[in-house]
Amino acid sequence: MPSTAPPAPTFPDFVAACRAEVESALDGWLPSPPACPSVVAEAMRYAIGTRGKRVRPLLTMAAAEAVAALVHGASTPAQAEARRRALPAACAAELIHTQSLVHDDLPAMDDDVLRRGQPTVHVRFGEGMALLVGDALLAEAFGLLAREPIDDGESSLRLRKLRTIEAFGEAIGAAGMAGGQAVDLTLTGTCHGGPPVSLDLAGLTDMHRRKTGGLFRVAAAAGAIMAGGDARQIGALAEVASRIGLAFQIVDDVLDIEATDETLGKSAGKDRCAGKATFPALVGVERSRRMATEAIAEAVALLETTGLGTTHLRSLALGVVARLG
Amino acid sequence: MPSTAPPAPTFPDFVAACRAEVESALDGWLPSPPACPSVVAEAMRYAIGTRGKRVRPLLTMAAAEAVAALVHGASTPAQAEARRRALPAACAAELIHTQSLVHDDLPAMDDDVLRRGQPTVHVRFGEGMALLVGDALLAEAFGLLAREPIDDGESSLRLRKLRTIEAFGEAIGAAGMAGGQAVDLTLTGTCHGGPPVSLDLAGLTDMHRRKTGGLFRVAAAAGAIMAGGDARQIGALAEVASRIGLAFQIVDDVLDIEATDETLGKSAGKDRCAGKATFPALVGVERSRRMATEAIAEAVALLETTGLGTTHLRSLALGVVARLG
Repeated sequence: MPSTAPPAPTFPDFVAACRAEVESALDGWLPSPPACPSVVAEAMRYAIGTRGKRVRPLLTMAAAEAVAALVHGASTPAQAEARRRALPAACAAELIHTQSLVHDDLPAMDDDVLRRGQPTVHVRFGEGMALLVGDALLAEAFGLLAREPIDDGESSLRLRKLRTIEAFGEAIGAAGMAGGQAVDLTLTGTCHGGPPVSLDLAGLTDMHRRKTGGLFRVAAAAGAIMAGGDARQIGALAEVASRIGLAFQIVDDVLDIEATDETLGKSAGKDRCAGKATFPALVGVERSRRMATEAIAEAVALLETTGLGTTHLRSLALGVVARLG
Repeated sequence: MPSTAPPAPTFPDFVAACRAEVESALDGWLPSPPACPSVVAEAMRYAIGTRGKRVRPLLTMAAAEAVAALVHGASTPAQAEARRRALPAACAAELIHTQSLVHDDLPAMDDDVLRRGQPTVHVRFGEGMALLVGDALLAEAFGLLAREPIDDGESSLRLRKLRTIEAFGEAIGAAGMAGGQAVDLTLTGTCHGGPPVSLDLAGLTDMHRRKTGGLFRVAAAAGAIMAGGDARQIGALAEVASRIGLAFQIVDDVLDIEATDETLGKSAGKDRCAGKATFPALVGVERSRRMATEAIAEAVALLETTGLGTTHLRSLALGVVARLG
């Protein structure tokens, strides 16, 4: 009887499996009493919730699978092993993303009251607690990256972990997410109805490259690093994720204008009211849509050049612009 | 001609040398434009300043020297090498400590306007920027711990770095600093003039063990880990630092009552006004002083048991209660 390789899972199967793995891992890795005070554990779990799309963890897992597929072929035990090794990084990406949302929603920043379909953390637990929840999420993310997967004495695993931690630090620090948010903060005007004047398209793109692109990049890079990818593969997957991140941000900006609170799960129309620098405000909705589509086309082309044209990353990239309808 | 060992540096020499090393390293490692936007770089450098006592970095460096002294004897090149290896951890401890101050000073927390003799970060740069500066400091700290000292392919160095990162994550996350601050937040009443009623001495001690003790513990443990200490040495030095941290917190509480803004470099008398749970509020000034002295006596006794009775750690411990005058 000839051995037959099992059929490759469909993209929806992949998404469902990854989400289940990530939810379960997050639940296990988030701190609980008596190790920590119950008040902070409760608020952290509320922040993480279960209604997030988990886009960044999916990117980590898809990148890890892609590296394994390049080396060992698709649908092999090597892919499952790559995902296992990338799971802590996938969860760290979600912990860090959630931290950025919790802090960003505070009155001193975007002052938002609705997130993932529920009251924001500071509305529910108070501003001080929201501040601490964010700090704790960041600390837990880095602790997790150092701790998991368990050290079995393999020096190359240690090196991968350290590279992943370094990459996350860079992606969310002053040169990355926090830096991009700082620039954003200096731009936000009051609700004057017109487009912001002090940032051109290059400036806006640079800001978003730091503010949201960095975490997309590192989510994919971390998956590739933990799966044992070489420098070329890690770089290519980071570039793909960078395009996906840009498109994701543009789509977010467009949906903020076109959608309602209910479909978004957060407050719609906030950006324009706050006079925020957004792609539609700067170049209009039509050109914004075109830019998003082009970024995804570049991502797909890059995947094909790297021999990854048939992986789940392709579906993930196409899914971003599909949100535009 | 007989070879003579150079005389061991005095404690003031050690403090001056360590502070110079830490200031210089922080200056080099803090992000700068064009890698990051200038607005966030400026605010981070303002937060770090140059007027901090750098107690936690001193603890890291002293612990690293102590481990080297146990193995190789005092005043050897091994001690200098241990300090070199511990320097990133010493700086990370200061970055994280500064993050906690910047966030703690925000209106949603302690609402303080003066710190290290200058306006607090949110007073100078706005609340949103203070939030981001804290986040960025945390990210930079972990990135630094993963990056430095430069990886020379030595597997044991990689393991030390990962253990250090894990220890920092635990010390400042939900079970540590953030958790302790969260408990503190639930206790803070308005200015009612009386002691808080909902926390006994055991509860207050546990809160401070998390809130300030954890960072003291990990500062010393990280120095010992990076210097190659064994589990017993690391544990003993963490215990010593834990006592020093407790004494430091009690002394801080006492000085908040007895000192002025000018001598403190921050707003004095804030704790009592805010109805905060402090040691003097709970057990009175005299018993608080005695508790601090006893904690330091325990630290010194522990050092002697571990064969470290003559190291700079002893002077560092005694210096904490010397602040009481």
